[in-house]
Amino acid sequence: MKKTLLLLSLVAAPALAGEGKWTPQQVLELDPAWLKAQGLQVSPKRLWDPKRGTGLLAGAVNVGGCTGAFIAESGLVITNHHCAFSIIQEHSTPQRDLLTQGFLAKGREEELPGKGARVQVPRSFTDVTKEMLAAVPEGADDLSRQKSLERKDKELVAACEKRPATRCKVASFDGGLRYVLIDSVELADVRLVYAPPRAVGEYGGEVDNWMWPRHTGDFAIIRAYVAPDGSAAQYNAQNVPYKAEFFFPLATEGVKPDDFVMVLGYPGTTFRALLADEMAERQARYYPRLIDVYGELIRILEEEGAKDPAGKIAVASNLKSMHNRYKNAGGQLAGLKRGSLVEKQRAAEAAVVAWAEKRKESAGALKARTELLAQQAEKAKTFEREFLLDVLKASVKGPSLAVTLVRLSQERAKPDLERKPEFMDRELPRLKDRLEREQKNFFAPADKRMFLALVRRAQTLGESERIAAVDKLFGRTYAEKEVSAKIDALYTASKVLDLTERQKMSGETEAQLRARKDPLLDFGFDLAAEVVALDELRDRRAGASARLFPEWRRAVLAQAGKPVAPDANSTLRVTFAKVKGYSPRDGAFYTPQTTLAGVMEKHTGEEPFDVPDKVAAAAEAKRYGPWVDARLKDVPVNFLADADTTGGNSGSPTVNGKGQLVGVNFDRVWENVSNDFGYNPDVARNVNVDVRYVLWLLDQVEDADALLRELGIRKGPKAQERR
Amino acid sequence: MKKTLLLLSLVAAPALAGEGKWTPQQVLELDPAWLKAQGLQVSPKRLWDPKRGTGLLAGAVNVGGCTGAFIAESGLVITNHHCAFSIIQEHSTPQRDLLTQGFLAKGREEELPGKGARVQVPRSFTDVTKEMLAAVPEGADDLSRQKSLERKDKELVAACEKRPATRCKVASFDGGLRYVLIDSVELADVRLVYAPPRAVGEYGGEVDNWMWPRHTGDFAIIRAYVAPDGSAAQYNAQNVPYKAEFFFPLATEGVKPDDFVMVLGYPGTTFRALLADEMAERQARYYPRLIDVYGELIRILEEEGAKDPAGKIAVASNLKSMHNRYKNAGGQLAGLKRGSLVEKQRAAEAAVVAWAEKRKESAGALKARTELLAQQAEKAKTFEREFLLDVLKASVKGPSLAVTLVRLSQERAKPDLERKPEFMDRELPRLKDRLEREQKNFFAPADKRMFLALVRRAQTLGESERIAAVDKLFGRTYAEKEVSAKIDALYTASKVLDLTERQKMSGETEAQLRARKDPLLDFGFDLAAEVVALDELRDRRAGASARLFPEWRRAVLAQAGKPVAPDANSTLRVTFAKVKGYSPRDGAFYTPQTTLAGVMEKHTGEEPFDVPDKVAAAAEAKRYGPWVDARLKDVPVNFLADADTTGGNSGSPTVNGKGQLVGVNFDRVWENVSNDFGYNPDVARNVNVDVRYVLWLLDQVEDADALLRELGIRKGPKAQERR
Repeated sequence: MKKTLLLLSLVAAPALAGEGKWTPQQVLELDPAWLKAQGLQVSPKRLWDPKRGTGLLAGAVNVGGCTGAFIAESGLVITNHHCAFSIIQEHSTPQRDLLTQGFLAKGREEELPGKGARVQVPRSFTDVTKEMLAAVPEGADDLSRQKSLERKDKELVAACEKRPATRCKVASFDGGLRYVLIDSVELADVRLVYAPPRAVGEYGGEVDNWMWPRHTGDFAIIRAYVAPDGSAAQYNAQNVPYKAEFFFPLATEGVKPDDFVMVLGYPGTTFRALLADEMAERQARYYPRLIDVYGELIRILEEEGAKDPAGKIAVASNLKSMHNRYKNAGGQLAGLKRGSLVEKQRAAEAAVVAWAEKRKESAGALKARTELLAQQAEKAKTFEREFLLDVLKASVKGPSLAVTLVRLSQERAKPDLERKPEFMDRELPRLKDRLEREQKNFFAPADKRMFLALVRRAQTLGESERIAAVDKLFGRTYAEKEVSAKIDALYTASKVLDLTERQKMSGETEAQLRARKDPLLDFGFDLAAEVVALDELRDRRAGASARLFPEWRRAVLAQAGKPVAPDANSTLRVTFAKVKGYSPRDGAFYTPQTTLAGVMEKHTGEEPFDVPDKVAAAAEAKRYGPWVDARLKDVPVNFLADADTTGGNSGSPTVNGKGQLVGVNFDRVWENVSNDFGYNPDVARNVNVDVRYVLWLLDQVEDADALLRELGIRKGPKAQERR
Repeated sequence: MKKTLLLLSLVAAPALAGEGKWTPQQVLELDPAWLKAQGLQVSPKRLWDPKRGTGLLAGAVNVGGCTGAFIAESGLVITNHHCAFSIIQEHSTPQRDLLTQGFLAKGREEELPGKGARVQVPRSFTDVTKEMLAAVPEGADDLSRQKSLERKDKELVAACEKRPATRCKVASFDGGLRYVLIDSVELADVRLVYAPPRAVGEYGGEVDNWMWPRHTGDFAIIRAYVAPDGSAAQYNAQNVPYKAEFFFPLATEGVKPDDFVMVLGYPGTTFRALLADEMAERQARYYPRLIDVYGELIRILEEEGAKDPAGKIAVASNLKSMHNRYKNAGGQLAGLKRGSLVEKQRAAEAAVVAWAEKRKESAGALKARTELLAQQAEKAKTFEREFLLDVLKASVKGPSLAVTLVRLSQERAKPDLERKPEFMDRELPRLKDRLEREQKNFFAPADKRMFLALVRRAQTLGESERIAAVDKLFGRTYAEKEVSAKIDALYTASKVLDLTERQKMSGETEAQLRARKDPLLDFGFDLAAEVVALDELRDRRAGASARLFPEWRRAVLAQAGKPVAPDANSTLRVTFAKVKGYSPRDGAFYTPQTTLAGVMEKHTGEEPFDVPDKVAAAAEAKRYGPWVDARLKDVPVNFLADADTTGGNSGSPTVNGKGQLVGVNFDRVWENVSNDFGYNPDVARNVNVDVRYVLWLLDQVEDADALLRELGIRKGPKAQERR
């Protein structure tokens, strides 16, 4: 990424203190004096060494779609409870319900391996913009542009991944203005060390999700293992803990209001660079439709889950993620309106247009913008169909697994580099894990009702937006009884939902799958044809965007004349912040810390406010140990900071100016959900578990002495007294 | 009340600064230095002159069940919008909807007389404890004790009311420890001067009721008129404004946090002196049942009102008061639990018992307590029946009006002094007003459904709690169709719900009413017989309480050893307070002032958050005039103080240390509803309209120039500029 270093003024302060998901390289472009004034006590070079291309920031690791952080040299990683959810769920049964009871490994031999769990530790970052762009032939149309970029991407990744246990990816910054090859070591033997009871890790549940005041112990501790020789390896009892070069020791003193903190992690996707018209489409159509459809699916999962304890466990994970997206969508809409974000983007865009109109060299930027606007208008015409096809493919296990199996058989027939990325050899183990793990999430009554609901919706689409596979199987008009009976028949006759059969299918060719005459697979074939066509359409759009957007973006950055962090793209970022409350509305102020007393205040004894007995007992006895905050006279539970985070930052380490862990990020506040579209310093607040709540639980509630010793924590005198 | 002056230490500070609804006399028992330190700038003697038995406190007047305050010598009274609701409703029609649009009289000739509206100005207070107690014959049983007390009460009142236009009452303090005869002049010609649009006066409606942050302009201005010679008189076009001796000039500078304020008024009823068992009964049975029954009735009124615009207007007043009681009940329960009030009362009671057990002279107090506990246990046995009978008699117009007519005919046959108080000659004009006014509130479909719902409940009562009148007419078991048909028939055949006929009936004898063979009246006769029996039972209980409670209370007060304000009893009180926010829960703090910006923040365009255009226009243009608060940079709308208020304090003047009006009290916060059972300084907050919001509306929105001139308010330069 060195080449980009000179693109912007070398040393500068950002426009707003809290704004910016900075890339590691950008940290070095920010004024060190400004960083010091903010509260950074270590040298920026310790955060990121440009020569080695790594640094303390690399102590933040990628854990599935989440972030985690090494907190000890011995491979211990802290992340969110909701990020370790699938490992906990994997080991939970009605008989031994770890989700409910929580889990503490008394020794290393008790740690529980997670099937799909992976930890990726970043190793190096290389700017590959030139290589990527050179791969596009002169005069290529948009589809072949995209295919060329994808091909080059794969080649670069393949070359990079020759090294064992390595995961590489080409990340696009600013929509293709820059491409960076990121090389990470992937640790595949990941084991659960500690998870609090669900009633702690998810305290407040959907009621409190995205909310403040918050009282959630949303953290879990896992450990990465490697082969005895230090190389990454699959699970093996002989494996030894991974030795972390960078880690964040726990700051036992915690934080107080106005303290400087950094939040490190892998923020997923933000939309701050979208054109105003694109933002407007999200506001007017995407989020409202998401609320509509997910609202219906959530109702179905809840109703069906309520009928059967095993069903309830099965749908839990889906329900959780749907609830999350549902509430998120509401927050995006509220925030887009509250912050007048589309209007602000329109004004900012107009300023860039006015600026560009005065510069001959920016004519291309203006032309690119006009084309992007036309593409957006075209895309809007098939919005409903694409939305529904995506949901059908992603949310209903029956069709989803069928399409996956079909596409797998089709893609595997191609040379590796010509496949869609998700079906390349490197992804197959992950895909197989998913094909297996999904069995845990499958609950037929709920799945069939969701299918029914989506078929009903598909059958009301306009003439130009029909889903042919649905029309073919279910007809063009909805008749509940018939559709329902057909779905029942599909599920009864199909072997797709049988784990053993499905695993067999995952190794079969297209011809073998067709020969099975499995009706759900046959529906999968029809649906897959439409998915493939849509993928190609989207490739064409992506090619156009790769051609046009960087042109426009260059003008935007030049007009800004100061460092601008690129939109999030699941790569390592850091945001600089302060511990800080906010006013959610006239007449109210949210203070930035909550306490154990607040946990008990919310306790009703009923989900989601049912404090486990052992936690309640310690809280009621005021058995705080050394984890009491002198000012609050209580154990701090959660705190707010004005860090610039988004989804993917779940589990992010929140560290102080010395690089010590003071908290674990797990949410944003409701008023701040729409910061994906723009940072508003008045309400931009992320929510963190206070490290002292973690320590209090381990010490005073769980007596996790061995784990504490490993973390270098001495139990305080008060804690010992009570023995 | 002079005699009581020596009961307590002469000069003392109360236990908690904000606690205490002090009687006028008690103000003089409080330490003047303490009052001055709190912020009182006028001499306590100006608040209350013990020689004259009046003072500035008497500027707070009784307006129906509410409080109002003179704000000009020319008879102008400010109170709450919800207290002037019936006058506004009386003049509202679908064609000229004053409720929705608000009302401003451009000149005195436009002011609108209110039929039932009365203003009572206190004139003198006389301790009559000796006379009351002397009236009870030696050896009287509890029923005759109560009858004797009631008789004496009536005699004292009758003698007092010989003076024209006078309303007197004997108020019992501390459950009969003291009796005070209160003499007030009653002004019966009361006219509406200004009411804001309902969307201002009720902004936030049921959603925000009892809540903070609040943005409600809950005030209205009325004027009292007298005959040209200054004597109180019924409405007459020739009448002239009443000349107020005491009034509260408007404090144009308003308030800021920590300012001293006093809230004056007529708090209705509190329960702080109840025995813990009595409190426990309220918590366990009364409020839960109220929530249950009112919840059902509210649903009926809402559903039926939604079907018919005229019906909606008709049920509005009932619905409002039911909603209010419903939400209040929820708050009482939450607060009783949150504050552990029953447990605290039990502990306090135990302390008094322990104290009394050491004192021979307190043996009577302990015995009295034991008897009171036994009485409570006995009463609990017929709780359900009594609750239902009360609701049936009060909430459903059909049976309610029928019972009223029957009881009126029966009682009027007796000599005046032997009647139940509410049927004495002095009450008849008020009663007739009600019989007429209720026509506005009657909406047959809603009324019949409420009747049906209550019959259904009555038919499920236990054997020992049957309501015979219901059993006789509707049978013992519920059959919806039949009961519904019978109710339809009752309402069709009866003339009770016809205004003209009802007015005739109100003059008829019992025999005449019986001769009508009106089926609803006949049901009224049956129901009235049960009401009479219940009244007698309650008289007996009241007699026992009058005998026992003072004994116990004397011990409680002696054990306290400091001034203790008696429970509220609808008599004039004052509470000393500070403008102050609070923490409703961990992690949140409510700031004590709200602003116009907050009004607009809540505006959705839909009820109850639909800011009228003229208000929105002025707010959006930031046309604040001189009413902007320098610190808030906005017009203040509502503010909090830690005053000790309850129902009846609605419309109370909130005045500063100089005796100037800074606000109008209109609510308590949700967390403070249960202060009826105990004062909690952490959450004891009353909600006031800021006087600057009143002035801003009159000046910048309504251009009420004449009214402002009369209030001695100059329009500020900014306000004039915009012309």
